[in-house]
Amino acid sequence: MENTQLNGDVNHRKAGRALSSAVSVTVADLSPLHRARLEYFPRLPPILKGAFGWREGEPTNSADDAEEIKGYFPNLYGQPPVFIAPNRGGPVTIGKTLRVGVVLSGGPAPGGHNVISGLFDYLYNRNRDSVLFGFLNGPSGIIKNNYVQLDEERIYPYRNQGGFHIIGSDRTKIETPEQFEKVDETVRKLDLDGLVVIGGDDSNTNAAILAEHFVAQKMKTKVIGVPKTIDGDLRNEFVETSFGFDTAVKVYSELVSNLGYDAISAKKSWHFCRLMGRSASHITLEVALQTHPNMALIGEEVMEKKQTLTQVTRSIADLIVERATMGKNFGVILLPEGLVEFMPDVDKLILELNEILAGGHLEEDQIIPKLTEQSSYLFRSLPPLIAKQLTLDRDPHGNVQVSKIESERLLIQMVSEELKERKKAGLASCSFSPIPHFFGYEGRCSLPSNFDCNYCYTLGHTAGALIEGGRTGLVATVRHLTKSPEQWVVGGYPLTVMMDIERRKGKNVPVIKKALVDLKGEAFRIFSEQRGSWRLTEDYRCPGPIQHFGPMADSINFTLMSEARDTVA
Amino acid sequence: MENTQLNGDVNHRKAGRALSSAVSVTVADLSPLHRARLEYFPRLPPILKGAFGWREGEPTNSADDAEEIKGYFPNLYGQPPVFIAPNRGGPVTIGKTLRVGVVLSGGPAPGGHNVISGLFDYLYNRNRDSVLFGFLNGPSGIIKNNYVQLDEERIYPYRNQGGFHIIGSDRTKIETPEQFEKVDETVRKLDLDGLVVIGGDDSNTNAAILAEHFVAQKMKTKVIGVPKTIDGDLRNEFVETSFGFDTAVKVYSELVSNLGYDAISAKKSWHFCRLMGRSASHITLEVALQTHPNMALIGEEVMEKKQTLTQVTRSIADLIVERATMGKNFGVILLPEGLVEFMPDVDKLILELNEILAGGHLEEDQIIPKLTEQSSYLFRSLPPLIAKQLTLDRDPHGNVQVSKIESERLLIQMVSEELKERKKAGLASCSFSPIPHFFGYEGRCSLPSNFDCNYCYTLGHTAGALIEGGRTGLVATVRHLTKSPEQWVVGGYPLTVMMDIERRKGKNVPVIKKALVDLKGEAFRIFSEQRGSWRLTEDYRCPGPIQHFGPMADSINFTLMSEARDTVA
Repeated sequence: MENTQLNGDVNHRKAGRALSSAVSVTVADLSPLHRARLEYFPRLPPILKGAFGWREGEPTNSADDAEEIKGYFPNLYGQPPVFIAPNRGGPVTIGKTLRVGVVLSGGPAPGGHNVISGLFDYLYNRNRDSVLFGFLNGPSGIIKNNYVQLDEERIYPYRNQGGFHIIGSDRTKIETPEQFEKVDETVRKLDLDGLVVIGGDDSNTNAAILAEHFVAQKMKTKVIGVPKTIDGDLRNEFVETSFGFDTAVKVYSELVSNLGYDAISAKKSWHFCRLMGRSASHITLEVALQTHPNMALIGEEVMEKKQTLTQVTRSIADLIVERATMGKNFGVILLPEGLVEFMPDVDKLILELNEILAGGHLEEDQIIPKLTEQSSYLFRSLPPLIAKQLTLDRDPHGNVQVSKIESERLLIQMVSEELKERKKAGLASCSFSPIPHFFGYEGRCSLPSNFDCNYCYTLGHTAGALIEGGRTGLVATVRHLTKSPEQWVVGGYPLTVMMDIERRKGKNVPVIKKALVDLKGEAFRIFSEQRGSWRLTEDYRCPGPIQHFGPMADSINFTLMSEARDTVA
Repeated sequence: MENTQLNGDVNHRKAGRALSSAVSVTVADLSPLHRARLEYFPRLPPILKGAFGWREGEPTNSADDAEEIKGYFPNLYGQPPVFIAPNRGGPVTIGKTLRVGVVLSGGPAPGGHNVISGLFDYLYNRNRDSVLFGFLNGPSGIIKNNYVQLDEERIYPYRNQGGFHIIGSDRTKIETPEQFEKVDETVRKLDLDGLVVIGGDDSNTNAAILAEHFVAQKMKTKVIGVPKTIDGDLRNEFVETSFGFDTAVKVYSELVSNLGYDAISAKKSWHFCRLMGRSASHITLEVALQTHPNMALIGEEVMEKKQTLTQVTRSIADLIVERATMGKNFGVILLPEGLVEFMPDVDKLILELNEILAGGHLEEDQIIPKLTEQSSYLFRSLPPLIAKQLTLDRDPHGNVQVSKIESERLLIQMVSEELKERKKAGLASCSFSPIPHFFGYEGRCSLPSNFDCNYCYTLGHTAGALIEGGRTGLVATVRHLTKSPEQWVVGGYPLTVMMDIERRKGKNVPVIKKALVDLKGEAFRIFSEQRGSWRLTEDYRCPGPIQHFGPMADSINFTLMSEARDTVA
């Protein structure tokens, strides 16, 4: 197979065509766009279609805490990144017969199906005897040895489609010795050469631990991670973007921009839009850049400026009053899901509540005396329903479930009270008609953009190539993503290179560092330059729905365009 | 100009091109899709491009209550519909100099800008001296003589774009003698030959009243209505569909289908989706046909079957339990905004509450003894927050604001209680993790589909032609909408033909009959045939986002396809 251009794309197309009639019963009621997308052939870097060699980079370190990370990963630590490179007499892939497992981990993100189809096509086009197993319903499927064999017939209806439902997903972490034993058993039973873990930062951390474990056990199974998350917080100088972010932000941007036009058409509503993104505000920042709302709250900035809930409430009220004096009783405000957790006063209150309620449920009047003065004041100023939510809804560890707080409704109530008080004090009078929105689940399983289709299909191929090349403990990477796929550089970086030590549940553990919004980065810089002009005008920008045909079908999100680091040597 | 094919499209394109550089400052930050849509040229029936004649139909009646309607409209009642027809020696349009006003009335719907650009292009291409005035912020703009002159420069940035913000809208009804006087004054000052009212059923009723008034006053101003509403309830044997419905249902269908894929990917959430549509459930029915949810509640069916809130709650709980026994603790349920108003028990409770609370606010324990036994039981079984909403939030007439009830949250709470009780009774045990959604405002101002662009642009032309032809009291109509625009038949039907007498605020008034979902109609028939198979499977269908390019750019919604009445002689 050396030096031979593989006709993988042609083979797939034929297979697909044959199948589209073979599986006609199943696909009978597919929508026209669903059918059309089945026929879309993702763009791939040409190097993945033929024989290729490998280029290794320099040995690596971890993001921080080198000695501790080394302690956790004695076998994997320090390995160099590898890149798929033109074959110039170096080692060459040979189309090995491979047995590979793939698993989806965590919340769905558009493009997951293309990682799987890309992986399948890579394996199948190199060697018809290779086998791909899909573990069912997430990592728990590995533990339970619950899988299906993925062949063209099974994969075809999911090509370029949204969702994770081809094999399902869950949030199981493989942690306990019993779980590791079960995993070893499964991997041995299936005689796996490799395991591809498609997931976010935690899942990729888990992938690294598995990779290290298999090496330590002298098992042949290689583990490759694939960077997934719509939140965009799995991103660093090695991973330019996680897949799914591009599609999700486009879905949300369309919706927010429709609300902007609604605001300026009906001229009577304030739309408060909470967007997914609990740990980081990348989605909110991107959607703001795409749509130009009157205000967008960025959690990282709130944290840096130590803005309290009261301060944020007042700043929103200021905007509403300012626009009201211009006769504009309408507008659009964006906020990230995790907003309140970035506020120092709310954060403090939650810590105290966790402590106080550790022993079990208490009534509000029992709680208040136990709080510090500041937290007591904040707690009493919260809308009753939110205060109740904080004390009642707790997770299995007894902690307050901050993620359940509908912060757009919290802010609406806080701002309403603030406006009433200003009115009472004779300071301001304005008509305030707020409408809460939450955009999250709508973007996780939508039809992937061409970018996510191409990126994921390439990631799937790359993961296959890395396993074929005998690599382990790497995350599949595609560099130069803002260029055309023909110019993409593919390979793998050690998962350890993205890690540091963090304290979780009272223990020091190695984790992949989450990327927060960089307040000195290009995207935030442009946002902070422009947002002043969005406050009092209605400069709403309308990106429209994702187009899969026509001149803007291959557009790329703004965050990636402005911040992609082209630093590969 | 007789028998000469007008080059209106070429002229517009040129004007548009010239302007796109002239207004470059304003359009500097338009999105690529926004720009591309500015250059889209809507398809038009060829007959509107050249000289044409008129064909009249038979004299008409009203939908019902003929004598009373005749009493309200002595001058307009009974006039025949007219159709624009090939010029075969009959009267011919001659490119009069016209002064026309246009107004947007009620909630926004995708395509409104195209009605205005279509109207402008018609007038401008026939006679460069014609003038179009846009009344600002709805019918109140007519009363206040608040307007702008609409020229190409002003219109260009809105071509094929969503929203109503080119001139704004409101819900003012022209009713009082003082308002009529003000309107007369404006119309005389501007010397209007015609007024185009773009609105829903109420706005078109108001258009008919204005038309009758102008004739009675011997004023020259003709009034033409244009059928707008995303709800789809302005529809009958004359108006095949209202504009905006096609786009809005496509926006909602994409979102619901994404939730379906999310449900089956993560396998742990029940998505409860409330969809806009208070008086009728057309949107819910269409979205159900597009997406195949596990359950879709149709208000009209609930009413016909006299289903109570308890019965609906139980039927949802049954579904949840049934799926749980199959290990499926997830699903998608659709409901129309107006659902609870279709329930006889809720309806009765609301009537009683309106009566009891007419004198002012009462506490719950004062209310309960005044309710009938049935209503008291229902009231006490409501979640506390909903009960409070019912007694606190009342409209300016003192009535309970049913539209403010978040019925997806009401049902979630009712179903949770029901499931708890069944569990207590040892009947069922299932994990129920519900997520509420409301899709409404997101669809009102979205980028119009090609269908709505073409339809609205044609409606605008037709309205202009009807005014030029000296017609009044008509609604602009386009027939054979499921065929290609080249085959569309355009003209106007008397607004009175759609009217009957209804009781509103204690008075008999003429109104345009709202179209409810026809339980014997084709769309509902197909839905009721298929829904059984959607309950326990996950046959979620993915229509995807609206495409403006490519093979499915001209697709038409299912409701129109299945129910369009091609009855024009």
